[in-house]
Amino acid sequence: MSDNHDLKIVFTPSGRQGQVKAGTNLLQAARQLGVDIDSVCGGRAMCGRCQIDVGVGEFAKHGIASSAEALSQPSASEVRYAEKRDLPQGRRLACQCTLVSDIVIDVPATSQVHNQLVRKEADNRVIDLAPPVRLCFVEVREPDMHEPSGDLRRLIEAIEAQWPSRVTAPISCELHVLKQLQKTLRAGKWQVTIALRSGCQIVAIWPGLKEQILGAAIDVGSTTMSAHLCDMNNGQVLASTGIMNPQIRFGEDLMSRVSYGLMNPGGAQEMTAAVREGLQQLITGGAEQAGFTASDVLEVVLVGNPVMHHLLLDIDPIELGGAPFALAVDTAVDIKADELGLSLHPGSSVYILPCIAGHVGADAAGVVLAEGPHTRDETALLIDVGTNAEIILGNKQRLLAASSPTGPAFEGAQISSGQRAAPGAIERLRIDPDTLEPRFSVIGSDLWSDEEGFDEAVSATGITGICGSGIIEALAEMYLSGVIMADGTIDGSLAERSERVESDGRTFSYRITDTVKIIQNDVRAIQLAKAALHAGFRLLMDKMGVDKVDKVVLAGAFGTHIDPKYAMVLGMVPDCALGNVIAAGNSAGAGARMALLNSNARAEIEETVRHIEKIETAVEADFQDHFVRAMAIPHKTDPYPELSAAVSLPVRDLSDNVPSADPSSRKRTGRRIRPA
Amino acid sequence: MSDNHDLKIVFTPSGRQGQVKAGTNLLQAARQLGVDIDSVCGGRAMCGRCQIDVGVGEFAKHGIASSAEALSQPSASEVRYAEKRDLPQGRRLACQCTLVSDIVIDVPATSQVHNQLVRKEADNRVIDLAPPVRLCFVEVREPDMHEPSGDLRRLIEAIEAQWPSRVTAPISCELHVLKQLQKTLRAGKWQVTIALRSGCQIVAIWPGLKEQILGAAIDVGSTTMSAHLCDMNNGQVLASTGIMNPQIRFGEDLMSRVSYGLMNPGGAQEMTAAVREGLQQLITGGAEQAGFTASDVLEVVLVGNPVMHHLLLDIDPIELGGAPFALAVDTAVDIKADELGLSLHPGSSVYILPCIAGHVGADAAGVVLAEGPHTRDETALLIDVGTNAEIILGNKQRLLAASSPTGPAFEGAQISSGQRAAPGAIERLRIDPDTLEPRFSVIGSDLWSDEEGFDEAVSATGITGICGSGIIEALAEMYLSGVIMADGTIDGSLAERSERVESDGRTFSYRITDTVKIIQNDVRAIQLAKAALHAGFRLLMDKMGVDKVDKVVLAGAFGTHIDPKYAMVLGMVPDCALGNVIAAGNSAGAGARMALLNSNARAEIEETVRHIEKIETAVEADFQDHFVRAMAIPHKTDPYPELSAAVSLPVRDLSDNVPSADPSSRKRTGRRIRPA
Repeated sequence: MSDNHDLKIVFTPSGRQGQVKAGTNLLQAARQLGVDIDSVCGGRAMCGRCQIDVGVGEFAKHGIASSAEALSQPSASEVRYAEKRDLPQGRRLACQCTLVSDIVIDVPATSQVHNQLVRKEADNRVIDLAPPVRLCFVEVREPDMHEPSGDLRRLIEAIEAQWPSRVTAPISCELHVLKQLQKTLRAGKWQVTIALRSGCQIVAIWPGLKEQILGAAIDVGSTTMSAHLCDMNNGQVLASTGIMNPQIRFGEDLMSRVSYGLMNPGGAQEMTAAVREGLQQLITGGAEQAGFTASDVLEVVLVGNPVMHHLLLDIDPIELGGAPFALAVDTAVDIKADELGLSLHPGSSVYILPCIAGHVGADAAGVVLAEGPHTRDETALLIDVGTNAEIILGNKQRLLAASSPTGPAFEGAQISSGQRAAPGAIERLRIDPDTLEPRFSVIGSDLWSDEEGFDEAVSATGITGICGSGIIEALAEMYLSGVIMADGTIDGSLAERSERVESDGRTFSYRITDTVKIIQNDVRAIQLAKAALHAGFRLLMDKMGVDKVDKVVLAGAFGTHIDPKYAMVLGMVPDCALGNVIAAGNSAGAGARMALLNSNARAEIEETVRHIEKIETAVEADFQDHFVRAMAIPHKTDPYPELSAAVSLPVRDLSDNVPSADPSSRKRTGRRIRPA
Repeated sequence: MSDNHDLKIVFTPSGRQGQVKAGTNLLQAARQLGVDIDSVCGGRAMCGRCQIDVGVGEFAKHGIASSAEALSQPSASEVRYAEKRDLPQGRRLACQCTLVSDIVIDVPATSQVHNQLVRKEADNRVIDLAPPVRLCFVEVREPDMHEPSGDLRRLIEAIEAQWPSRVTAPISCELHVLKQLQKTLRAGKWQVTIALRSGCQIVAIWPGLKEQILGAAIDVGSTTMSAHLCDMNNGQVLASTGIMNPQIRFGEDLMSRVSYGLMNPGGAQEMTAAVREGLQQLITGGAEQAGFTASDVLEVVLVGNPVMHHLLLDIDPIELGGAPFALAVDTAVDIKADELGLSLHPGSSVYILPCIAGHVGADAAGVVLAEGPHTRDETALLIDVGTNAEIILGNKQRLLAASSPTGPAFEGAQISSGQRAAPGAIERLRIDPDTLEPRFSVIGSDLWSDEEGFDEAVSATGITGICGSGIIEALAEMYLSGVIMADGTIDGSLAERSERVESDGRTFSYRITDTVKIIQNDVRAIQLAKAALHAGFRLLMDKMGVDKVDKVVLAGAFGTHIDPKYAMVLGMVPDCALGNVIAAGNSAGAGARMALLNSNARAEIEETVRHIEKIETAVEADFQDHFVRAMAIPHKTDPYPELSAAVSLPVRDLSDNVPSADPSSRKRTGRRIRPA
């Protein structure tokens, strides 16, 4: 067999194949054929990332007769690697093999650079890996007095020569790397690993081989903050951490925090410091949980609502508190972590997804990225309920966004027996239409209240109140059993039939337990909230010219716990096949993770957000009409005159508190929400 | 006269001319024709930068019959400007004029953006202005709820629309600007001035119109540091400041500072802090002298030798102390001022010219930029003498650089009666060849020692020693009068003829005054230094294949004080017409100023330095030969065998002090200088 004849090589699972010369290095052959095999050490049998299997059993299919001895014998380096690092039986290091005869090579998922990560949650997009920061091991030429040149120049030449496919622009080097460059090169005996960001920035350097760096994807909610710490190479989640947002001490909801900043000199800075401490705690905690330290974190992606977004950047959120609700910045922000006062690796960057509009934040951008409505033909409605409901409607052609001022009723606030979703809270409720007797379950137990053992099961916590999803079910069941009428009034005449219906003076209430009851004002608060939500998506549907959607995605914790049937009864989602109403979980966080692990996802969401049509409900006359109509249960197309007299359009505005140099330059369009 | 016919317009001094429609705005017309008229306010009659003269008397020459009333009447804004800001008689604001009939317009130098600055020093290059950071006044659209967008987006749109010629890439904004953006826009009633760097970065923002920002060009010498504070718009030097380098307390010369860093843990950091404090002091002092503060400084350019360069970046200079003398970085460094711990404007940048080689610093790059040998056909030799002599040789085709280890003898150090150039030091000396009697002058007086009134003139300081240029003259005169022989030996037989020649035991000395004399070792030290210098340029001339040069440029203070004739007697400059030996003053600082005021100059010097052939004298056998030959006075082509036995090749090396993990990786090539 001559040494230079053409061989046939087939790679699975990609199916790529071609002819290469006998004696070609397998990793080189893969790159020639565009097959995606990973490597950190650049072919030195050190990192083990380029492991492949010889595709036994695949030969006949590909017309290859035999594969025995189709690869060269293991090199001394490969044997050493196998001894030290435990190479599984049958695996070879592609960088150490040369081709002897025709062969089928299987590239396992763990060896693929652009490995896809399938998220656990149903119906979500897969994450393609294209990390913005990559490790590259390089061997650097030593200085030579016969041809003087700086250490950095030789390092850059080495990167360009040894990692040509990774370099996308002229390479620059950060000062903190430059400071340690000479010591590190010599400590590593001219072998170092660098972290290359965006294909052109040297952001870190280590002597010898460094194999793992971390990234953190963080959802900065107004109540809770949660982080996923990921291996930047393969995208695996190594740790997940969550804490309460330390800003909570400045106010439960966003508007009270904006007010705090307004009323207290230095208040915004205090809140900035608090949320940054929270970020540091989350990242440090997560890194340590995964067996690393915060200095192993090279990349952070953040999502959050506009107020959180501004506060964590140390931008006073005052403008978000009153019309015209102008964001300081509606593009993505890409800065160094130390600009946020974070103590991570000194080369660490923070990428913050773009906010969409004054009330539609980077968290909503994360939901869009995760759910991908802009990539599909079907028209999807994405709803993320918090203090505001952020609403996105659209498809491949067109995407619209708005926020509706639902207020915090859906979170159990402003409800007489309301509470956060925590053990002891009623979360499920049924009412017998004949007896009007309730049965319910509470968080912390799977039992219904009429099942045996219920009392013991809840004895630890007691029944402390009713959470957001419980309220939704309660209202829908009250309507379905006739306790409330279509206009939301609790039917006092039922007091004759059931002692559950009680008089409160001018109005009535429905008693679930001795301490937990639904009063008329609670019904009104939910009516207002659900009408605002309904009016929001209805307005977007009008703008889009559709009267139905193909899919409804409920993002966030609220979406996970709510029963779509009841949401539909109340008009919280548009008419749609029940099976197409999907709870997507923490989509904002999932979007953050996609942006963490894939540079292209960043470009994609920036482009998408730029083209989203932003609708401010406060200036839309139709919103008021839809809102009034949607007060009924279920909503009707004709307005209830008696209701429209009783309520006013809820618009977030702190104008009364906002000192303004030029009052004429700021529109004032509404009042705070007040239950009728 | 119809309103839309073509008019002829001629601009002087550029001579550009063309046809424009009647009624065209004059500033627009200038831009259409590529005529360079400045503006900060963008045509709002606020900044007064676009002043022009109607070119009376120029009409006939350009074939234009009359210019009376050729421009529109002054607008209300222009009248207001003239009242408030004093518009000279006959001057108009181009932005406020429209064209009525044919006209000649004269653009005064102060209204030209690319105004040239002629440096005072003879034979230097003019500085074309193309500042890396420019002020732009913009009017920003207010937020609109009907079309929500972030404040930054509208600011960027305004810059792109109102300053299209200034924008060279997608615009980004630094975080510190973003933090103040909303307040500043509102404080300025949607009129702000931004500083745009590199045509794409918003690095500063002020409400309303901001008209002046400063830049600092600083030469960081090992002994002294000097700064020019410039108006970034017109390049005028507003203040000049100088201080001793505070590092002097760690060692007079560079190598003793490198040793200090080596011997004292944290020593390098101490020196870094010291030089940075010096920088801050220089800039703050200069800004205040000019009636500004440090926060008006937006741009700083630094030059300095490699050790200073590394120390100010907080890079341990240890590698520069021993072979192979590897620089950490040999490219230009462009960082934010706060990375150097400087308290200037938070958007301020620091640009450091590239070092050329381990002993040829950014100061030498500054000399190259200022003197421009790479732009000329003639072959120039640039010599900058300090502790090392930095030597550049070449022309448009080819440029070579080396440094010669002259040691500090030329600065008066290692000389028995030597001292720094300061009042009381002998700086000029003549010896009568018949009587061997000296006459001399000292710094601080113009009188010669044999002139009347000399004793009174120097009574304040006394005669305290001899400085570098005095030593050169003394040696050359001693040779010319026969006191020393061609091999440098003081001729003891002359003691019989003159009491100026005295025995010191085995050798002799020459007495100038009772306390100042030249001993044999002084002669040897200067011989070594001048031989090293000579060997350096001789080596470059060999490499270049030339045996004469067209021009010799002596840069720095030494060059200013030395008499070229004596330098030539001693062989410190190659044979060359005396008139072509030029003292250029502080060329390094001039180069820094060019780089401060002209982005293109930065690209030019980066490109030039990349292509300079770097010669390390330590590995050149010919250097040793040249060195030994050049010991004679004047130098001869044949070596003096008796001298080559007595001296050894001087190579800077602290190897004996340098702990090294891997001694085999570092070449050791020489010993310290020791006078024979």
